[in-house]
Amino acid sequence: MSDNTIQPPQPPPEGSAPAGPSKSELKKQAKAAEKARKAAEKAAKQAELEKQKAAAEIDDAADNYGPLPLNQSQSRPKRERIQISSLSDRVGQNVLFRARVHNSRAQGSKMVFLNLRQRTTSVQGLMIVSPGKVSKQMVKWAAAVPTESIVLVEGTVEKVDEPIKSASVSDVEVHISKMHLISGIDGRLPFTVEDANRPETAAEAADAQFNRVLLETRLNNRVVDLRTQTNQAIFKLQGAIGDLFRDYLRQHGFIEIHSPKLQGAATESGASVFKVGYFKGNAFLAQSPQLAKQMAIAADFERVYEIGPVFRAEDSNTHRHLTEFIGLDLEMAIEEHYHEVMEMLDGMLVNIFRGLRDQYKDELDVVRKQFPAEEFKWREGPEGTLKMTFKEAVDLLVEDGVPREDLDDINTENEKRLGRIIKAKYDIDYYIIDKFPMALRPFYTMPDPEDPTLSNSYDFFMRGEEILSGAQRIHDPTLLCEKMRSKGVEPDSMKPYVDAFRLGCPPHGGGGIGLERVLMLFLKLNNVRRASLFPRDPKRLEP
Amino acid sequence: MSDNTIQPPQPPPEGSAPAGPSKSELKKQAKAAEKARKAAEKAAKQAELEKQKAAAEIDDAADNYGPLPLNQSQSRPKRERIQISSLSDRVGQNVLFRARVHNSRAQGSKMVFLNLRQRTTSVQGLMIVSPGKVSKQMVKWAAAVPTESIVLVEGTVEKVDEPIKSASVSDVEVHISKMHLISGIDGRLPFTVEDANRPETAAEAADAQFNRVLLETRLNNRVVDLRTQTNQAIFKLQGAIGDLFRDYLRQHGFIEIHSPKLQGAATESGASVFKVGYFKGNAFLAQSPQLAKQMAIAADFERVYEIGPVFRAEDSNTHRHLTEFIGLDLEMAIEEHYHEVMEMLDGMLVNIFRGLRDQYKDELDVVRKQFPAEEFKWREGPEGTLKMTFKEAVDLLVEDGVPREDLDDINTENEKRLGRIIKAKYDIDYYIIDKFPMALRPFYTMPDPEDPTLSNSYDFFMRGEEILSGAQRIHDPTLLCEKMRSKGVEPDSMKPYVDAFRLGCPPHGGGGIGLERVLMLFLKLNNVRRASLFPRDPKRLEP
Repeated sequence: MSDNTIQPPQPPPEGSAPAGPSKSELKKQAKAAEKARKAAEKAAKQAELEKQKAAAEIDDAADNYGPLPLNQSQSRPKRERIQISSLSDRVGQNVLFRARVHNSRAQGSKMVFLNLRQRTTSVQGLMIVSPGKVSKQMVKWAAAVPTESIVLVEGTVEKVDEPIKSASVSDVEVHISKMHLISGIDGRLPFTVEDANRPETAAEAADAQFNRVLLETRLNNRVVDLRTQTNQAIFKLQGAIGDLFRDYLRQHGFIEIHSPKLQGAATESGASVFKVGYFKGNAFLAQSPQLAKQMAIAADFERVYEIGPVFRAEDSNTHRHLTEFIGLDLEMAIEEHYHEVMEMLDGMLVNIFRGLRDQYKDELDVVRKQFPAEEFKWREGPEGTLKMTFKEAVDLLVEDGVPREDLDDINTENEKRLGRIIKAKYDIDYYIIDKFPMALRPFYTMPDPEDPTLSNSYDFFMRGEEILSGAQRIHDPTLLCEKMRSKGVEPDSMKPYVDAFRLGCPPHGGGGIGLERVLMLFLKLNNVRRASLFPRDPKRLEP
Repeated sequence: MSDNTIQPPQPPPEGSAPAGPSKSELKKQAKAAEKARKAAEKAAKQAELEKQKAAAEIDDAADNYGPLPLNQSQSRPKRERIQISSLSDRVGQNVLFRARVHNSRAQGSKMVFLNLRQRTTSVQGLMIVSPGKVSKQMVKWAAAVPTESIVLVEGTVEKVDEPIKSASVSDVEVHISKMHLISGIDGRLPFTVEDANRPETAAEAADAQFNRVLLETRLNNRVVDLRTQTNQAIFKLQGAIGDLFRDYLRQHGFIEIHSPKLQGAATESGASVFKVGYFKGNAFLAQSPQLAKQMAIAADFERVYEIGPVFRAEDSNTHRHLTEFIGLDLEMAIEEHYHEVMEMLDGMLVNIFRGLRDQYKDELDVVRKQFPAEEFKWREGPEGTLKMTFKEAVDLLVEDGVPREDLDDINTENEKRLGRIIKAKYDIDYYIIDKFPMALRPFYTMPDPEDPTLSNSYDFFMRGEEILSGAQRIHDPTLLCEKMRSKGVEPDSMKPYVDAFRLGCPPHGGGGIGLERVLMLFLKLNNVRRASLFPRDPKRLEP
């Protein structure tokens, strides 16, 4: 409260006995009133003077601050706007850049500190009153710019003596001479980006004082949540996985295809398919590009891959299921043996792991600060990736105490247990299980040539969770129709698919990978929603 | 009919008078019957001998031909299988390769010519009877292998004196010593790949004798259609466009995002959106990643791109509309002026054109054989791409005789006319129209700062057809809500989208490109369905 604030005469306290004022009291009151009036007059005069003075100051630095016009496409001076990450190399230079106000702290009325942020980097900005350049009003204005506003800042880069811990660029700060508002905030932030970026360790989560932002709140306000350093890093890594996938396959003679997501018939398994109103009839959303990529092989494409959305109408709200996710799919002709495909998939995945580790160290470090996790491990060198048959995996579980009669299939719980067994035994987080029982696989899976109860199929695992499922496919129409019927699918309901094999198709196989699962498990994010930009589950269709 | 065929005694011709046989006639008949019996006996003996002889021959070369077992994943000798394209460098070598039988021609009973195909390449194979290696039965079998079967062929590469015109590798042929069937044909081909690959010129199309395969027939049997050299080249070029798009944007600091196709609300314009049954409620298929990519900018992603399906529920069956196509989308923050975005899009497209011309000459030549077209032309150098305002485009059309009152909007017909005018005037097929009237653009388009009837928006054209639409977007929530209401959209119906701008968003702009249109127009395929692997339109959901 400033010294100039006028206190109006107080009414008598409630509950006190009402009593008429005495003459001397009235006189006293009149005197006090007169005094108050005079004080008020004086204060008003003072305020007017300060206003005039402030107005003079505004004129002094008026061009150096304030909001920019909404539509910034009016002139094009082509002045360089720099990245905060380059500031350490620009000591002494005058620089111009756009940034978010991560937070600000006024020190008295003549100085304000601003933490200025660009994606995963930040720097300290400092604005100090300086005659003719930075007015008191300008400092006041800057201190009042709300957190998360976007500003255009100009200033000189200065070395600092003590490293600045609160900024990612710690050896310099920017002495601000101009600052304009590009985009402000309309309303209240659901949470601060600072809070959203705090480490998610068990100890901290258990601490009631810890200002933890719940996943649900984050996802409801995903645009703010995505601004954290962690999320900027996570989605850079998501893009990196796609790039590494494509680069490897391009080098190995694959071409990219785009198959339709709208299908005329409910494919693979009718139960978990979304139905779409299609003009006067219906269509269905593809559960995978399975049929199309096999048809591309029948059409002589030899080696194809696709990155695209796949849709699963499963009403399950687990940490690892989404109703829409990105499938990294590939399919290739086989020359001699389906292990050619399995090895291609393995080589491609190891290339992704290696690429992330070697080319994205900074991003991995950023994520690990919020989601502490042991580094993801895999086996390289002459031994290569650990591979075992389904039978061998069952034996490992039985050895560990799981009753064999529970292991016709390996459920999610036992999958995780197997992951722990393998981690303990080999210290690796990535392995392949081959030769699944035919009964567990879809109709298009090629049976084992020696034992028809087994199949030429495999799953790949990361940290005890399945990330890839694949197999050699049946390329013979007669056997395909037989298997379809045995699984209750009428071949005529998928005529264009079956016809593709009637017209000659090479032996082939492939696999499909969930992009978000690979990202979640490599980083140990614990929930697949964190690995999806705007996740979709049975309860979430927005934002 | 073979000489050994026995003619049974003929009954008397119908209508002749019935008469009992005479004694001499009976004798004659008995004699003839005896003669026939003897002849039949002799023939049977002869056939038995031939069978034995043939059996001996089969044994001789039995291992060298015949069908392979269905499941080829039984052993893995790791024998190299070569590409037909490498055969010219392998004269004198024994080679093994998998190929389709494009066609075959037996010459007598001792020799068969096979045209063997791999994607865009082919070679002549020759099989000649050779004692102990190639039996007569083997040649007969090879000649009977149906067109489009897949075979595994072994043989030696031999130079030829005369270039072989019917094969893409014309300087050598393969003398086949072994040939096994990998995959046969079950049923009848809808058309031959040879017919499907014939040039589509107007003169030939008009010729009734010309064995033209109609587009409808092709699309109904797309798997066979896609095997033509032309289609192998078209889809290699489709993949190339995606690669060139990504490579350019990666170099310019963009990251790839994947936005959900399932939306909670019908966005942009409710009329042309597909409705999806979503558990107990409904969802809608995204018409574009517009909202998501703008929200990514509000979330500090700075520069994003996406390649993914977009869905349009428009019931129009034109040469350029699909209900599902691949959008190449980008969005970026603006520093000074929206022309930064327009120039980024321009640079990216020119990079695609240049990449196709310089790196894919062979594929372009292959396509041009079936779809003859003038080479696609654009302007480079200091002048750069031709850019004009909407008003200047209208003036060009008025000059050409179009009544100005018809030009509040430029319809498809006038777009094409403009393309012809520009082609005649500048000899280029690619240009940009800037500054569209605000009334023609969606609610999120930023108005021009000087003239509110105009907007900061642009379309890009190839050969007189629009391939890209883009603009600066409104990043201010107040102006956005105002524009939404003026176009009849209730801001509350898109709350998460509007909220993204309430929390601070930099000025930004972008654009969306139809992949299939770029491919169609660069190659002049005349129908966008030819540029889509398995096209979808209001009448087609299969294959």
